[in-house]
Amino acid sequence: MPFELTKQFIARIRLTIDKRDNKTAKELLDSLHAVDIAEIYDELNIEEAKFLYLLLDSDKAADVIAELDEDDKEKFLNAIPGKVIAKQFIHKMDSDDAADVIGVLDEEKQEEILSHIEDIEQAGDIVDLLAYDEDSAGGLMAKELIKVNENWTLNTCLIEMRKQVDKIDEVYYVYVINDDEKLKGTVSLKKMLLSDNRKKIKDIANTEVISVKTETPSEEVANIMDKYDLVALPVIDSLGRLLGRITIDDVVDVIKEEAEKDYQMASGISEDVESSDSIWLLTRARIPWLLIGLIGGVLVAKVIGIYEFDLGTYPEMAFFIPLIAAMGGNVGVQSSAIIVQGLANNTLGIGSTYSRLLKELSVATINGLILSALIFVYNYFTSPEFALTLTVSIALFSVIIFASLFGTFIPLLLDRVKIDPALATGPFITTLNDIMGLFIYLMIGRILYGIF
Amino acid sequence: MPFELTKQFIARIRLTIDKRDNKTAKELLDSLHAVDIAEIYDELNIEEAKFLYLLLDSDKAADVIAELDEDDKEKFLNAIPGKVIAKQFIHKMDSDDAADVIGVLDEEKQEEILSHIEDIEQAGDIVDLLAYDEDSAGGLMAKELIKVNENWTLNTCLIEMRKQVDKIDEVYYVYVINDDEKLKGTVSLKKMLLSDNRKKIKDIANTEVISVKTETPSEEVANIMDKYDLVALPVIDSLGRLLGRITIDDVVDVIKEEAEKDYQMASGISEDVESSDSIWLLTRARIPWLLIGLIGGVLVAKVIGIYEFDLGTYPEMAFFIPLIAAMGGNVGVQSSAIIVQGLANNTLGIGSTYSRLLKELSVATINGLILSALIFVYNYFTSPEFALTLTVSIALFSVIIFASLFGTFIPLLLDRVKIDPALATGPFITTLNDIMGLFIYLMIGRILYGIF
Repeated sequence: MPFELTKQFIARIRLTIDKRDNKTAKELLDSLHAVDIAEIYDELNIEEAKFLYLLLDSDKAADVIAELDEDDKEKFLNAIPGKVIAKQFIHKMDSDDAADVIGVLDEEKQEEILSHIEDIEQAGDIVDLLAYDEDSAGGLMAKELIKVNENWTLNTCLIEMRKQVDKIDEVYYVYVINDDEKLKGTVSLKKMLLSDNRKKIKDIANTEVISVKTETPSEEVANIMDKYDLVALPVIDSLGRLLGRITIDDVVDVIKEEAEKDYQMASGISEDVESSDSIWLLTRARIPWLLIGLIGGVLVAKVIGIYEFDLGTYPEMAFFIPLIAAMGGNVGVQSSAIIVQGLANNTLGIGSTYSRLLKELSVATINGLILSALIFVYNYFTSPEFALTLTVSIALFSVIIFASLFGTFIPLLLDRVKIDPALATGPFITTLNDIMGLFIYLMIGRILYGIF
Repeated sequence: MPFELTKQFIARIRLTIDKRDNKTAKELLDSLHAVDIAEIYDELNIEEAKFLYLLLDSDKAADVIAELDEDDKEKFLNAIPGKVIAKQFIHKMDSDDAADVIGVLDEEKQEEILSHIEDIEQAGDIVDLLAYDEDSAGGLMAKELIKVNENWTLNTCLIEMRKQVDKIDEVYYVYVINDDEKLKGTVSLKKMLLSDNRKKIKDIANTEVISVKTETPSEEVANIMDKYDLVALPVIDSLGRLLGRITIDDVVDVIKEEAEKDYQMASGISEDVESSDSIWLLTRARIPWLLIGLIGGVLVAKVIGIYEFDLGTYPEMAFFIPLIAAMGGNVGVQSSAIIVQGLANNTLGIGSTYSRLLKELSVATINGLILSALIFVYNYFTSPEFALTLTVSIALFSVIIFASLFGTFIPLLLDRVKIDPALATGPFITTLNDIMGLFIYLMIGRILYGIF
């Protein structure tokens, strides 16, 4: 059953560390998965974490390091000499994990570690991987994979595989290449189990294999693996030669981060932060949108300022300022969220912008009519001013129509000009709708108060 | 290379359908993956889709059905006799896909299909799976897996596996059971390739296997598979007997849906909708939050109403109503989004609510001081009323503090009482902060205008 970290458990671990009780601490850790131990590290200080790490065998220690949060990874590794990192951890790691680990450190430390790696081939693989953009297929891939020549028989292939297989944690597919190292197909282990050993690999290989290039953005990699339900995806160079493979566990993180990034942007958070990050980081992630909101608020104040005289005469007009502003914001955020998610998931289909605006207009009209009617009835019975009653309802309806059209159009426009459409949701669209909504509201109010 | 659906391609497909040009249509489809054909189906009407489906061999046709959107699946299957569905699709499908397909239909159609399934074991598996909640491990699992007895030798095991293996698309692990069908461990195919054929399974099995029960919620299944980087997860009953396995591709969808659900809720959308859904569905998903926003707006109007006299005397107070309301909303949404994501990802750590509020207070104080100072300087030079300048700055600071504490506290509270904390983000917290923020603003205004 999965482990759940509790305060009691941390207290127990701390107690054994304080007592330098190696035996009990080792027993506690031995039953745990590396990722659980990494979670415990998150709660400890460097000295405590170092004490525990000395108790782990080097396989598990390497796994724990790979599972640490980026911040913890950096802190922890900077407290350990490069020679120890190279000899104790790195040589136990897959090339992608090793590159991720080394990638968080500064250049000097990187070179120190690389100089201590004994396996020249592994050091070369890591240097290769460090060169790729971390948000590309090259940055996600591992060099370790099993490849066999298409001209081999299955029997030769099995002998070769036994040589290659101990480098790799999990085998999902065996990759088939030709004499020029070009990717020609895959063979599943299942197919190998079922086929005659004398058959040639090219006769049992699946040649309709989906692959990506090293420069393919990680978002696209994630979409492809999700869409085609792949657990591993081969990466090729521009000549079609097989360079590495990406596994689904690394891509699940990309998928989650993408979905969360949109949510964070919609919530006005401009950097990828967590509750456990530093106060400084949290502040920096939040203040840009608040500044935009502040500037927007000042602009709105200017718009209302135009109607200062009206407000002095009919102060009850001010009562519904927040309602109009909030409803414009809410409708705009709803509309844009649907478009942003549709763009992210490729579920918008191939319909035109025009037909989408038309549909949005229908939804907005229904919602607008219902909500305006409700507020009309409420105000009719509670407000002494019929002009106000009429103003609020007409303005609310207009604001809902405008806000939903803006909310649909702006993310589509941003996407067309290659700006992340998630920018449009959140404070940006709320502020824009505030300005427009209140302008409409106060203008209609001036006209209607003139009539009634 | 992955296929990309274009308007041109749909036009070409339509043309071949109109001409009843079976040969060209078949050529166009043959090069495509099932999921790509499912995307094409989304764009066609039932008659067109039926024409294409007759051209596919039954393996591919079954895959296409499994990949269709829920709406399309239902529409398409209702247009086809139950007997054809049973004989042509269902018997080609894994039990989980078959149950998903049958699950979208009404009971009568379900029984019609089940009565036509020839393989009694498969029909039984499907009925078993239909009984589970679709948001639980039981609803996610497939019955197909390879299981071997712990007392067998690897050689016996390989012979048995050849019998079991043709039922299953992908083999990730072989599951080890004892004589009572209880799950005892797993063996990777890699281990099988490397081990001596005379060894007993129990000697090469990994016995530290993570499993879930049928009733485990799918959100928890997703968290476990993500955390431990699993591509398949066995499902057991309360006696520990092996019932099925969940594969990562089904869980990736759960992970995406969870992340998107939070985003949709934060954007005030109460059902899982897409841009391509009907106008009625889109309206229904959006109006509940708008109604809450409307009620909130009316309450805010009441709060402002208390200060009607002050607003008549100092109408410039109204200028900054939207700014105060918007900033309260923005800060509240930021704070709650960080907590909601932390809760969803289990990254909050084990710190106390108290320490989290204290941290949030620090961030809010920094942001509040910066923003209040900025607006103070702006108003000092542009506003003739010093009372207004002071009111806006003090109120803004107070609102930022309150909104961030509310935004942190409310989702934590909801989570403690087992309500989805994502409810707290979006219109709910915005409205609450509007009411509180404007109350603070107008109260401070009344006091300061009294003094200056």
